[in-house]
Amino acid sequence: MPSAEIITVGTELLLGQLVDTNTATIAACLAEIGIDVFRETSVGDNESRIAQAVTEALARADVVICAGGLGPTVDDLTREGIVASVGTELVLDPEVVFDLRAFFASFGRQMSPNNARQAMFPKGAKILENPKGTAPGFALAVGDKLVIALPGPPREMEPMLREHVVPLLRETFALGQTIATRVLRTTGVSESEIDAKIGDLFRASVNPSIAVLAHAGEVHVKITAKASSREAAAALIDQLEAEIRRRLGDCIFSADGSSLAAVLGGELRARGWTIATAESCTGGLIGSMITAVPGSSEYYRGGVIAYSNEAKTALLDVAAATIELHGAVSEEVASAMALGAKAAFGARVALAVTGIAGPTGGNEQKPVGLVYIAVASEDGRLEARRLHLSGDRETVARRAALAALMLGWRASRAAREDVAADL
Amino acid sequence: MPSAEIITVGTELLLGQLVDTNTATIAACLAEIGIDVFRETSVGDNESRIAQAVTEALARADVVICAGGLGPTVDDLTREGIVASVGTELVLDPEVVFDLRAFFASFGRQMSPNNARQAMFPKGAKILENPKGTAPGFALAVGDKLVIALPGPPREMEPMLREHVVPLLRETFALGQTIATRVLRTTGVSESEIDAKIGDLFRASVNPSIAVLAHAGEVHVKITAKASSREAAAALIDQLEAEIRRRLGDCIFSADGSSLAAVLGGELRARGWTIATAESCTGGLIGSMITAVPGSSEYYRGGVIAYSNEAKTALLDVAAATIELHGAVSEEVASAMALGAKAAFGARVALAVTGIAGPTGGNEQKPVGLVYIAVASEDGRLEARRLHLSGDRETVARRAALAALMLGWRASRAAREDVAADL
Repeated sequence: MPSAEIITVGTELLLGQLVDTNTATIAACLAEIGIDVFRETSVGDNESRIAQAVTEALARADVVICAGGLGPTVDDLTREGIVASVGTELVLDPEVVFDLRAFFASFGRQMSPNNARQAMFPKGAKILENPKGTAPGFALAVGDKLVIALPGPPREMEPMLREHVVPLLRETFALGQTIATRVLRTTGVSESEIDAKIGDLFRASVNPSIAVLAHAGEVHVKITAKASSREAAAALIDQLEAEIRRRLGDCIFSADGSSLAAVLGGELRARGWTIATAESCTGGLIGSMITAVPGSSEYYRGGVIAYSNEAKTALLDVAAATIELHGAVSEEVASAMALGAKAAFGARVALAVTGIAGPTGGNEQKPVGLVYIAVASEDGRLEARRLHLSGDRETVARRAALAALMLGWRASRAAREDVAADL
Repeated sequence: MPSAEIITVGTELLLGQLVDTNTATIAACLAEIGIDVFRETSVGDNESRIAQAVTEALARADVVICAGGLGPTVDDLTREGIVASVGTELVLDPEVVFDLRAFFASFGRQMSPNNARQAMFPKGAKILENPKGTAPGFALAVGDKLVIALPGPPREMEPMLREHVVPLLRETFALGQTIATRVLRTTGVSESEIDAKIGDLFRASVNPSIAVLAHAGEVHVKITAKASSREAAAALIDQLEAEIRRRLGDCIFSADGSSLAAVLGGELRARGWTIATAESCTGGLIGSMITAVPGSSEYYRGGVIAYSNEAKTALLDVAAATIELHGAVSEEVASAMALGAKAAFGARVALAVTGIAGPTGGNEQKPVGLVYIAVASEDGRLEARRLHLSGDRETVARRAALAALMLGWRASRAAREDVAADL
């Protein structure tokens, strides 16, 4: 399998003025066609440092892809760095000069002399057209290796990558393989709990391979397979997914990129159900996650953000005595909030959350991170859970919101399965 | 001037599954304290490749900062790579083991054996605390050079960079010059509108320099000054800030990093006022932004997410006839929602939003992006605005939420100024 290195060029990257997204774009594209990347480098707009990085990369990899530094200014030195590294020279391409002149003329401007620099290419290089900008790229064979240069702006670089570079690499290295990936999204379990359950698979699996990635309140298990066709890769993934599901069970909520709110929405839609929310410490986050899904107005009736006790009583009909007796952060209040929201919005299901997000407001009995979630659904069903969540205010809120959505999803599925069993 | 290199570690970076934002964060931080960065490298979770990259970087730079690969899984190999490079060994730090156990116990969980790996450090390394996660970092002196390792998740990495790494580098390299930055946060204006108003300053200013950065719904104007002391740098910034404020006026809501919700909260607190929200197309986002501010329970009473017309009528007392006559997305309904929320929660101020976030639901009269916001405040004051917002569903919701918070902030300030004028 051929290997590649990526070099991004630009002093703004070294000053932290710009986040480099080109590297990830190029790397993902190479992964798809089965080219391994073992190193990525960023250097500034400096000829000798570019040359040095290219020389080092060529010593290790079959392909070196550079992005950036092909512009018209004297700061753009990628061409010079590459010829210095491989020991050739730059020559002017008259056809590109002609095209550049025509391009500027097309909107009534004269080409500045600087722009002629963009028509200079290493001797023998194949020119890669840039339909979105003035800087063409190029590919230069160096022995049996390849150095490719692309412009830095992502909207110019990306189409050139797909249209010129991928076909060139497929042809040069006779690549037949396809790489497919699938992400199993989970919530309610930690990265190390997942590692404890599937660590052996994780370490033993080469194709498909497994990666475990922690996100805010979620852990993603990513399965990647290489095969000769898309179908064969999917079949490899199916097998491993089944084993992972057997071990991780119901903390997995999607395998197609869907958010938990979208998965819950799909379930509600399948049932023809509506939902409402009653939030305290999540402050509207659950509503915001539910409504981030296009079309959610079909099933989301609305919610109450009951940040004060008075609001819990007035809008959600939580008895003042219940709050008095058990405290606002209690299973009883969470349950009463869920029932209150269900009634207030005339919804078939309602989710409720009450808790202490911190950083203050906790005490020994009720520490920061203590959260109660509840779901009220059909036929007076009511279920509540107590959670101890770690993290800062934002993290606690996010985890609590995801836990409530998960509880709602499970309740909706269980109800559907009940009905199916009855039929 | 000392030089540094940055090494980010993670196979997901080489597969393009994750955009590396840590490099830019670290590079910007180093630029602020006057450390040059000439190269950045990413390598996978592979001990020998990490070691090789560290060795090469140490040969060129005074400081090598690694990010990523400090997690609890066997894939996390940055510790091993560093000791292999510098020729030392890993030792267990009993205090960190103790802290980790206590951390897991604090929310009723047992530490998994894997987590103990996070208590291993190169012999002689200074341990850098991680207040947001379980993986501490470390700094290891190698001759007169320094290798620093930080965890990969940006929300853990960033505070450690500011709190531990910057002071350590300042001390180690006796960095005299201070670089100070101040960010003027604005909302409701576009990047190009800002460019039209301050573009000349922007292009002419060297010290302080100006950068304009677009964020979700906000544009940030960043002023950076170099001087021999913090006070001198601040004085340089003050001057330029005054000129920028003169030109941009009241779209600037903070100059100290505060979010708009925090600025509004500060104003409400100063007045002793409470606030409530009534949200339709923002679906809880405004409540979620308000409650993301610690201590917001002092002034936020709560909100209604009125996603259906029935909810607007039942919970916010919006007359069905008003909805019938003007439509749910109208100035009249936004105003009625604000008044309804003010009454329902007994708050001194209430914000309301109704609109069409898309992607569907628009028509010729009321296109996607049409949003009405309203604020009801003291003495029956009521103010509404019509907005035409661009972007996808999430962006429209975010812009609408910020516009509503801005309207609330201005109404609160105006009321305070009225009172001051009366005295």
